[in-house]
Amino acid sequence: MTYCVGLLLKAGMVLLSDTRTNAGLDNIATYRKMFTFEEAGERVITIMTAGSLSVSQTTLSRLRDAIRATDSDGETSIMKAPTMLKVAEIVGNMLASVRMDVEEKLHSMRQSASASMIVAGQRRGGNPRMFLIYPEGNFIEATDDTPFLQIGEHKYGKPILDRVVNMETSLEDAQKAVLLSMDSTLRSNLSVGMPLDLQVIARDACEVTMSRRIEAGDADFRAMSEAWSVALRDGFQQISL
Amino acid sequence: MTYCVGLLLKAGMVLLSDTRTNAGLDNIATYRKMFTFEEAGERVITIMTAGSLSVSQTTLSRLRDAIRATDSDGETSIMKAPTMLKVAEIVGNMLASVRMDVEEKLHSMRQSASASMIVAGQRRGGNPRMFLIYPEGNFIEATDDTPFLQIGEHKYGKPILDRVVNMETSLEDAQKAVLLSMDSTLRSNLSVGMPLDLQVIARDACEVTMSRRIEAGDADFRAMSEAWSVALRDGFQQISL
Repeated sequence: MTYCVGLLLKAGMVLLSDTRTNAGLDNIATYRKMFTFEEAGERVITIMTAGSLSVSQTTLSRLRDAIRATDSDGETSIMKAPTMLKVAEIVGNMLASVRMDVEEKLHSMRQSASASMIVAGQRRGGNPRMFLIYPEGNFIEATDDTPFLQIGEHKYGKPILDRVVNMETSLEDAQKAVLLSMDSTLRSNLSVGMPLDLQVIARDACEVTMSRRIEAGDADFRAMSEAWSVALRDGFQQISL
Repeated sequence: MTYCVGLLLKAGMVLLSDTRTNAGLDNIATYRKMFTFEEAGERVITIMTAGSLSVSQTTLSRLRDAIRATDSDGETSIMKAPTMLKVAEIVGNMLASVRMDVEEKLHSMRQSASASMIVAGQRRGGNPRMFLIYPEGNFIEATDDTPFLQIGEHKYGKPILDRVVNMETSLEDAQKAVLLSMDSTLRSNLSVGMPLDLQVIARDACEVTMSRRIEAGDADFRAMSEAWSVALRDGFQQISL
């Protein structure tokens, strides 16, 4: 399983992913689920993945191949696509085609494999945009009404986002919000695990503003988690039935 | 969908269920999901249900028939069963047999139906016990380590329980906790809906200590929900990244 969350705010975008991959309960590994394509000042695109590792790795590899291809253009390379919408289309089409390839192989075993992705980015002259790409390749976009997108194990971490996040949330508060959302998920689902990848892309920077890997023993993360537990318990005691 | 939660504490048991039933998104109705069997001072058993209404209603009807049957005994009637463990067995067996009957009917339509239940109760001379009955009829029991059981849409409401509930929690705090857990679920899943049924069974009372239906416009519930939102936001602001 996986938990990835992205916030699209007036001030920019905040992205967080875990790194746990498992095939069954007895085969657990750490894989990065956040991938960035960047031409600083011109274009930044970050993709987060959930689902079958074989599908998401192959999709990312083919996207990289398409960028490097000598005949790449705005129809095939996410680094040349004229808009973020076109980027989402390219990723969606690639994801759908890889999924079909893999499912063909798996068909005889009566298994299936799929993946979903969050694609966030901005090109110079455009707005920051964020998309959730479904396994079938179609997608939805984050809006003012719903400024966050989640993939993977999304339910445990949603209540906190519902209550504290809106378009006006600062980038600093947004980082707290996604980390607390992840913390709730980590506590409840063993298949979501540390370390975490946290990234901030400030509006109009068109490059990664801050990127940080948070390891399992991270003192700051633990302190924040404990402070949140205390705040919840205090708040709980204060309200009356 | 449904959300039901039960807490087994040193001070007694607290139970909460929603009442929304839906067949698809366009056929929504209100049905009670909490059912109590009581011989005050001797025995109290409350059953909460999630899943197919046809399965849970038939199971409850047959349990009632078995209680009323002239030849009822401790093997068939939950009101005569010698222990709460036996009560759980009777309910589990009945649930499994009804599920099989219904699935036989549905087989030709390639549909299936199942239900799960929480069974909580105490008989005079015994301890309060609480069981989660799976659709197959087997069950697990709440323990000191995990003093709550949930059925239905359980994920949204779990983080708050994880953080504030343990065996020592008072019955009053426990009511707050289950209501806030429900509140988080109501916000995120349209198929869980008001009114709510809240019940308290104090330890060794062997009867329902408090039972209350909370209607959609309930001012107290709304005030508590809003106070919790404020407490969360305040707590969120106070902690540092």
